[in-house]
Amino acid sequence: MKDRNPNSATLLMHCEDKQGIIASVTEFIREHEGNIIYLEQYVDSEEKEFFMRIEWELENFIISNNKIDTLFKEGLAKKFNMDYHLYFSDERDRMAIFVSKLPHCLFDILARTQSGEWSVDIPLIISNHAELKSVAEKFEIDFYHFPIKPENKKEQEEKELKLLQDYKIDFIVLARYMQILTGDFINNYPLKIINIHHSFLPAFPGAKPYHSAHKRGVKIIGATSHYVTTDLDEGPIIEQDVARITHSDSIKDLLRKGRDMEKIVLSRAISNHFKRKTLVYKNKTIVFG
Amino acid sequence: MKDRNPNSATLLMHCEDKQGIIASVTEFIREHEGNIIYLEQYVDSEEKEFFMRIEWELENFIISNNKIDTLFKEGLAKKFNMDYHLYFSDERDRMAIFVSKLPHCLFDILARTQSGEWSVDIPLIISNHAELKSVAEKFEIDFYHFPIKPENKKEQEEKELKLLQDYKIDFIVLARYMQILTGDFINNYPLKIINIHHSFLPAFPGAKPYHSAHKRGVKIIGATSHYVTTDLDEGPIIEQDVARITHSDSIKDLLRKGRDMEKIVLSRAISNHFKRKTLVYKNKTIVFG
Amino acid sequence: MKDRNPNSATLLMHCEDKQGIIASVTEFIREHEGNIIYLEQYVDSEEKEFFMRIEWELENFIISNNKIDTLFKEGLAKKFNMDYHLYFSDERDRMAIFVSKLPHCLFDILARTQSGEWSVDIPLIISNHAELKSVAEKFEIDFYHFPIKPENKKEQEEKELKLLQDYKIDFIVLARYMQILTGDFINNYPLKIINIHHSFLPAFPGAKPYHSAHKRGVKIIGATSHYVTTDLDEGPIIEQDVARITHSDSIKDLLRKGRDMEKIVLSRAISNHFKRKTLVYKNKTIVFG
Amino acid sequence: MKDRNPNSATLLMHCEDKQGIIASVTEFIREHEGNIIYLEQYVDSEEKEFFMRIEWELENFIISNNKIDTLFKEGLAKKFNMDYHLYFSDERDRMAIFVSKLPHCLFDILARTQSGEWSVDIPLIISNHAELKSVAEKFEIDFYHFPIKPENKKEQEEKELKLLQDYKIDFIVLARYMQILTGDFINNYPLKIINIHHSFLPAFPGAKPYHSAHKRGVKIIGATSHYVTTDLDEGPIIEQDVARITHSDSIKDLLRKGRDMEKIVLSRAISNHFKRKTLVYKNKTIVFG
Repeated sequence: MKDRNPNSATLLMHCEDKQGIIASVTEFIREHEGNIIYLEQYVDSEEKEFFMRIEWELENFIISNNKIDTLFKEGLAKKFNMDYHLYFSDERDRMAIFVSKLPHCLFDILARTQSGEWSVDIPLIISNHAELKSVAEKFEIDFYHFPIKPENKKEQEEKELKLLQDYKIDFIVLARYMQILTGDFINNYPLKIINIHHSFLPAFPGAKPYHSAHKRGVKIIGATSHYVTTDLDEGPIIEQDVARITHSDSIKDLLRKGRDMEKIVLSRAISNHFKRKTLVYKNKTIVFG
Repeated sequence: MKDRNPNSATLLMHCEDKQGIIASVTEFIREHEGNIIYLEQYVDSEEKEFFMRIEWELENFIISNNKIDTLFKEGLAKKFNMDYHLYFSDERDRMAIFVSKLPHCLFDILARTQSGEWSVDIPLIISNHAELKSVAEKFEIDFYHFPIKPENKKEQEEKELKLLQDYKIDFIVLARYMQILTGDFINNYPLKIINIHHSFLPAFPGAKPYHSAHKRGVKIIGATSHYVTTDLDEGPIIEQDVARITHSDSIKDLLRKGRDMEKIVLSRAISNHFKRKTLVYKNKTIVFG
Repeated sequence: MKDRNPNSATLLMHCEDKQGIIASVTEFIREHEGNIIYLEQYVDSEEKEFFMRIEWELENFIISNNKIDTLFKEGLAKKFNMDYHLYFSDERDRMAIFVSKLPHCLFDILARTQSGEWSVDIPLIISNHAELKSVAEKFEIDFYHFPIKPENKKEQEEKELKLLQDYKIDFIVLARYMQILTGDFINNYPLKIINIHHSFLPAFPGAKPYHSAHKRGVKIIGATSHYVTTDLDEGPIIEQDVARITHSDSIKDLLRKGRDMEKIVLSRAISNHFKRKTLVYKNKTIVFG
Repeated sequence: MKDRNPNSATLLMHCEDKQGIIASVTEFIREHEGNIIYLEQYVDSEEKEFFMRIEWELENFIISNNKIDTLFKEGLAKKFNMDYHLYFSDERDRMAIFVSKLPHCLFDILARTQSGEWSVDIPLIISNHAELKSVAEKFEIDFYHFPIKPENKKEQEEKELKLLQDYKIDFIVLARYMQILTGDFINNYPLKIINIHHSFLPAFPGAKPYHSAHKRGVKIIGATSHYVTTDLDEGPIIEQDVARITHSDSIKDLLRKGRDMEKIVLSRAISNHFKRKTLVYKNKTIVFG
């Protein structure tokens, strides 16, 4: 059963693969009267690294929430030299959206939050263009317009970073934001910026991928959502999907088919992120089920 | 090239299969200086029926738009005993949406019209519940609330029909409208009502298909968009799509995965309809490319 | 890492969901120096039933293979009232294939065993027709021809059962076998007979599903592999897949597209079965990853 | 109806887009009492080039087969400056297969011809290794072993070309042939050599694409069948397909999932080729339906 429990803790962890990790962690939960509702583990046998996502009900758990982390850190995390994050189901992330002129991903995201499908707050939309201001207003979300030119990029990004801080933003979604962020900006939100690239990476990185796909005569196009790193279009992939095309599809047809893919792929990636299902290790994203 | 020309005529036709139909129709267009930009034909060899969609530029066409129909009717249509429709690219359909409480299909449709992706007008939303009124307001579309009970169904449908007439509605979309329309209502809009059913028809017709799919233990779920006829869930299918599930997906997971399928499948069907790509013959929908 | 270890044990189990099952089983393996290489668990929250597949290396395991079962049965299996199976990676199943006239699934299966892709033995092919004898000979597999008529069905099935016993067959694959097995036959191999049905069940059960799909005008066809039970086409589904079709596909086209689906879907199901990844509970198949 | 007629002619053509091409060609067929059973046309509006595939029954056609080509060449082909090929349904192509050590594509192809699914003859298999000789023998096809080293490549290819000529080979399939053909060899069979590349081109060209896909952490892998040109992995794409993977799939898993994709994608491409459905223009393959 993968429906989220209203009162649960989730542990995402990895460490060198050794005997007894699962036994130790599950025993830790059992001895404190926690009921496991989800466990998925994975061993990267090349890297000899062990990964696990485990979720348990807190209802009868005999350790109070604010003490779990300390207890775990001093105990098992130290013993197995774990890298881990602990989340509680009553926490709710705050997300900022960066857009340019294309509205399809933005609408898809806003519809999901507005309808209650997603448990995430969106207090802030930032754009380098003014076109989508009316969409932000429709959904009553603050909209800031920062036109970007080579000569003002650094300055504008600093204002954006200030805003992100003021709004207490947890993670950023680039919903067809057609600007390349500087390394300085990205380093403020490591593995906290999610992009949608309109190709099946690593095919057709960079600008105008549908034009390149059309020119090459591929029979399938794709979209890729990934965490943004300082290597353009090279960050850890979270989700991909594809659509079949034919010789008779014009570039406009590719753009049209692409829009549906892009919005669905991006929304799946966002959802996996804020539901604490993703874990990045050495430029690969482990996406738990 | 499938991009629509701003000034073109489209002929959708079928008739008994005979030699010379394509030659005659294409010659009709050529001799009047029309340039064919799309032609697709199909022969149902069991039914011995010929089907064609043909589109040509009107720029240099030497017959004026208001005379094409008469000329064609008296000429080739009579000769081959054709059933046909003639459309002009500058006509724009008016669509009404019926909804209940679920907003995902509604949002998807409104985002497409709002963003200019679709050339269709939506002046009217009708619902048997009040919940989605705020969405209609957000997009500045008139919203009417007609609660339906067995004892008032006929009366309410008559009011709805009056409204549809007042608003000059060309076709109706049931965007997860959870009421069964009466035969009387349907007969007012033959092959002009498009529904989305949340299963892979003919599997799981009727209510609660995701619950039935979960109980049966299928590994793939689907969604089906079809024209509404007086046979419930039996109308001509326009579009279907599927999503892979596993044993670990709960009913809530199916509902969630289903929403994305439903909205995309319904929107593809609507788009094929108003772009004059669909032709129904004996309960099957021919969807031209 | 999902590659099979040459020397490992696999436990497939289910029992009423309780706290501490994972902790207990993983501790059992850890305390005897086993290294877990795969663990997947699943809780059916409606049925309150817990399911798990766990695999561990036997290299340093301090209990000898022939004692593990007894120790587990008396210990944890009793404590948690488990239903379980224990498998060892050096066991190799013996599979019989039933065919009629269509060779595509048969060829696909034989190619996989011949090329060493599959670790399974196929000593026996049974058919109600003689057509595929030459294929069996090509691959040097014993072929028996049992023509079936209503009046000799029971008698022929008894001969087949005798053969299956003589050949020490572990499980049976119906590779487009166009005969319905009797309940008596099926009860000899409960959840050990795998069928491929050439539709997306529960749509189009019974005979000639492609004809029914063509008549209904569906836009997607499917294939379903399932365990055979005494309820025709109602057994637990192991795997399904689909292919997109259009109005222009004739029944012959559906048959052609169907063949590729059928062989791949059936082969995936067989592979999941003999790799001990399937577990049936109340007419649903849990397929571990 | 896309089932092939036992006695039909197929014209594949392209020329500069002009008014009246379809009208002229269909009138040519009509006036000689041919019955069109398939017509698909396509205009590349960027290149201003018109493409068509048209098939008609020869039963009552009043021009004898051996005169159609001359009549067409002198008439419409000259008028519209067409590039065209004319095929007759009673012609049967002869295909040679090149393999190395992996048998899955070879088995898939041989099963299709053996079972009568494909109307193509395979008199010859060539390999740079001896491993698959037994498969060739199973299917009673002549097998020649040409070990390739840098120093003997030219010489061996010349022997292969001699064989291909002796066996009157029409086209060549590289069924996971792990050698790069020289430009000299390729130029003997322009657009007559079909390869399967085990990635979603243009992603991961060159050697070991599954290893590269695994390293990059993609969520979907693919396979690509294309005509071989002197630009390695850059030839016109005929068919592609993809399979979903997860972080837990090892390279061995990718290889396993890849095999099923590769064989299906290659077989679709081969089938489209010998059924005269493909037409190459400026490094893109038009695949008619």
